[in-house]
Amino acid sequence: AQSSVTLFGVIDVAARYTKANGQNVKQLTNDGSSSSRFGVRGVEDLGGGLKAGFWLESALSADTGTAGDTTTNKFWNRRASVSLMGDFGEVRLGRGKTSTRLVVDDFDVYSTTGLGDVTRVYNTLGSSIQTINRADNLAQYFLPGDLGGAYGSFDVAAGEGAVGAKSYGGRLGWKDSAINVAAGYQSTEGVATAKFKQLSLGASYDFGMAKVSGLWTQLKFNSLKQNIYTIGAVVPVTTAGSVLAQFSDAETNSTADRVAGTAGDAKFYTVGYLHNLSKRTSVYTTASLIDNSGLAAFKVQGNAVNSARGGRSGGLDVGIKHSF
Amino acid sequence: AQSSVTLFGVIDVAARYTKANGQNVKQLTNDGSSSSRFGVRGVEDLGGGLKAGFWLESALSADTGTAGDTTTNKFWNRRASVSLMGDFGEVRLGRGKTSTRLVVDDFDVYSTTGLGDVTRVYNTLGSSIQTINRADNLAQYFLPGDLGGAYGSFDVAAGEGAVGAKSYGGRLGWKDSAINVAAGYQSTEGVATAKFKQLSLGASYDFGMAKVSGLWTQLKFNSLKQNIYTIGAVVPVTTAGSVLAQFSDAETNSTADRVAGTAGDAKFYTVGYLHNLSKRTSVYTTASLIDNSGLAAFKVQGNAVNSARGGRSGGLDVGIKHSF
Amino acid sequence: AQSSVTLFGVIDVAARYTKANGQNVKQLTNDGSSSSRFGVRGVEDLGGGLKAGFWLESALSADTGTAGDTTTNKFWNRRASVSLMGDFGEVRLGRGKTSTRLVVDDFDVYSTTGLGDVTRVYNTLGSSIQTINRADNLAQYFLPGDLGGAYGSFDVAAGEGAVGAKSYGGRLGWKDSAINVAAGYQSTEGVATAKFKQLSLGASYDFGMAKVSGLWTQLKFNSLKQNIYTIGAVVPVTTAGSVLAQFSDAETNSTADRVAGTAGDAKFYTVGYLHNLSKRTSVYTTASLIDNSGLAAFKVQGNAVNSARGGRSGGLDVGIKHSF
Repeated sequence: AQSSVTLFGVIDVAARYTKANGQNVKQLTNDGSSSSRFGVRGVEDLGGGLKAGFWLESALSADTGTAGDTTTNKFWNRRASVSLMGDFGEVRLGRGKTSTRLVVDDFDVYSTTGLGDVTRVYNTLGSSIQTINRADNLAQYFLPGDLGGAYGSFDVAAGEGAVGAKSYGGRLGWKDSAINVAAGYQSTEGVATAKFKQLSLGASYDFGMAKVSGLWTQLKFNSLKQNIYTIGAVVPVTTAGSVLAQFSDAETNSTADRVAGTAGDAKFYTVGYLHNLSKRTSVYTTASLIDNSGLAAFKVQGNAVNSARGGRSGGLDVGIKHSF
Repeated sequence: AQSSVTLFGVIDVAARYTKANGQNVKQLTNDGSSSSRFGVRGVEDLGGGLKAGFWLESALSADTGTAGDTTTNKFWNRRASVSLMGDFGEVRLGRGKTSTRLVVDDFDVYSTTGLGDVTRVYNTLGSSIQTINRADNLAQYFLPGDLGGAYGSFDVAAGEGAVGAKSYGGRLGWKDSAINVAAGYQSTEGVATAKFKQLSLGASYDFGMAKVSGLWTQLKFNSLKQNIYTIGAVVPVTTAGSVLAQFSDAETNSTADRVAGTAGDAKFYTVGYLHNLSKRTSVYTTASLIDNSGLAAFKVQGNAVNSARGGRSGGLDVGIKHSF
Repeated sequence: AQSSVTLFGVIDVAARYTKANGQNVKQLTNDGSSSSRFGVRGVEDLGGGLKAGFWLESALSADTGTAGDTTTNKFWNRRASVSLMGDFGEVRLGRGKTSTRLVVDDFDVYSTTGLGDVTRVYNTLGSSIQTINRADNLAQYFLPGDLGGAYGSFDVAAGEGAVGAKSYGGRLGWKDSAINVAAGYQSTEGVATAKFKQLSLGASYDFGMAKVSGLWTQLKFNSLKQNIYTIGAVVPVTTAGSVLAQFSDAETNSTADRVAGTAGDAKFYTVGYLHNLSKRTSVYTTASLIDNSGLAAFKVQGNAVNSARGGRSGGLDVGIKHSF
């Protein structure tokens, strides 16, 4: 069983201007198009169709040199897992991204990254959940890759007594060369053991001149509810360049709207351009605007200035990303 | 002098159930059979029989993504060292495992890891020593490898003014294909400059149908004393699978027994099974029970619940480990 | 575009004795001759003379196992950057060393490391600047390498609202086989938006039997000023060994001299010997003494004991460094 260890990563740095509430911030920042990371992974062939694998992945901020999640003190915060793989699919144990979030990543034109990250208008509705993106103590099962286009994964996270950490969920999808459809659902124990429930349905179709994506997410906690409707498109304009555009409409129900901390109506507009210098290196520019209503105060990524309630938050960046 | 840098590591994840004092905890946890780690090491041939080498090794928790020792903020907490090697042996400088602990590792059937880790019933007797496993500021000398089976190492740790950090110690052993015997001794300055003294004697013999190990450790601090007697066996049951069993009897003297914080009589039972899927990947299960007496309150690894004084702590896990 | 990722690093460990104010400290310490580090870097050829590159570099202390800057919680504290390179030179974005510091590094015989580090007598004059060595949010431009010996770089650091973080600067130099001359200048916004200004002029000439370096640095903040005059030499004594000697005279103006926190007259003497066991591995010894005047209380690197005002601080170390 020969060792095969691969070092990999992404460095994404951008100059960004963001504005809200009459104030602006100029930054050299991070992760405008892809999340910067450093990782090590490998696969071992065990014979008889069985394989073992590991994956360690750490976020990083190239603008300041931090690594991992410095708040929770997790260096390998993006993923730390061991897997057994075979004809049956893959069993994966450790920390990683939840199945439901993968649906959001896949049908958000910006892959939940940078100024266009659709989850900037997602609302955790006061639930204190920790599993909206990644989860600790995760046991995951992935369907095998040869199901005629069908794919899916299911996961359970052991809460180990922490609030907002115990969850189960999954996703099922189907794709061929042009079409991709998927549904994901996750239930997490939030504060007072009430469940935070996420449902996402996504679909995309590649028309050739444009790939159009649609995504509907519903978030629920007790009687509080939010619906986020997103439509986006990637339009190739040259062999190396594409225009990306996306619009989201986020609406909380009247119960949530009454409370400043959970209020959530907003419209979110993003447009950008990505130009590939090679398969591994790209330059990009993105502009986005969140237009809050009522008591909502969402803000675009990296905006150090808070929106006024019902106000706007917007940004523009120009960046470069390099994968290795 | 060609560069030869090797990336290496272990990911060990287990589902574990532990119970004490009428309460139980279910976890996806870490390090049931080997300690998870990520490392980088290399050796340079300097010519004339001389070599230089380095070793950096960081612990990790695949269940949560943490790395190193997050309490003391040491990323390369397992080892960070530079070495000069030659016919004379090896001189090694940096942070690393003490010689005395290597004796305990070698004759503990569970290599001081997981539910069977014998040091769970070791008592530092209120000494506040930091060197029972690894030490900072360590200068070590290792005997060369061609002494007809004899081996050994000696080390001094500079205290640099910290309590429980200044130590000296060593080990001497002899092994051939079936037998291995060793003795280790370490003295560390604990609180009030009193010495914490560790003595370990170990022996193992491979009968073919079973490899049997015995280990005696005596720990002393002022008039407080603990003796731990351990016997264990590894029994190959198939070409790929082995049963591991171990029993320890830990006894503190009457002076230590009077004080809740240092009292330490306990019996420790462990049995498990390890199955190799390849040289690099194994699955395992381990069950262990600590039965405390008097004021003792030892608990098995990973048990978030404290034992009642004189009560029991037990656990069961099933896991997978993968080396790269 | 083939991936080419290189792991690299340095481990430098030394036994050091330092003394000041009648007290002494014995340590196994770090970075006596080169700064210990662990890094990953790579370059991608984009075609048409264009290249992309990345660089991640983390400090480490082999004596204790810490990594990065544990105070500011930056793992990749030495450098985290992405670059585009071509005939035009290099544009580099991220965290890294400022251009002005590169002049000090180049003409300090000890490359601002260990007991001889010239910046031990540099005075930030109460400005709270953070950019005297490295800077966050740095955009840098480097001249191309084919300008007939001329070289240079220019940089701007976005302050993002932090005190002492917003700076601009650059350096210009010229070198051939024997001579090297350079000038660097940097201006940083310190407390109360007053500017901290650094000017360094350096020159070196390799006479064959000795390479002699001279460096003048002037630091200014409001009406406070410090001049540091340094002269050093590297004298090859065998094919593998060199003697390094350096003297600095640091003088603050009368305004700074009146205040204990900024007072700064001192003379700094260093002498050492470096012996290469190979291109990658060396042993060394260094002795240094700082002789403070007036209210100055500079101390040599790693001295845990503070100098008395106007007193002396000195040290001696013996170490080994290994690059990979």
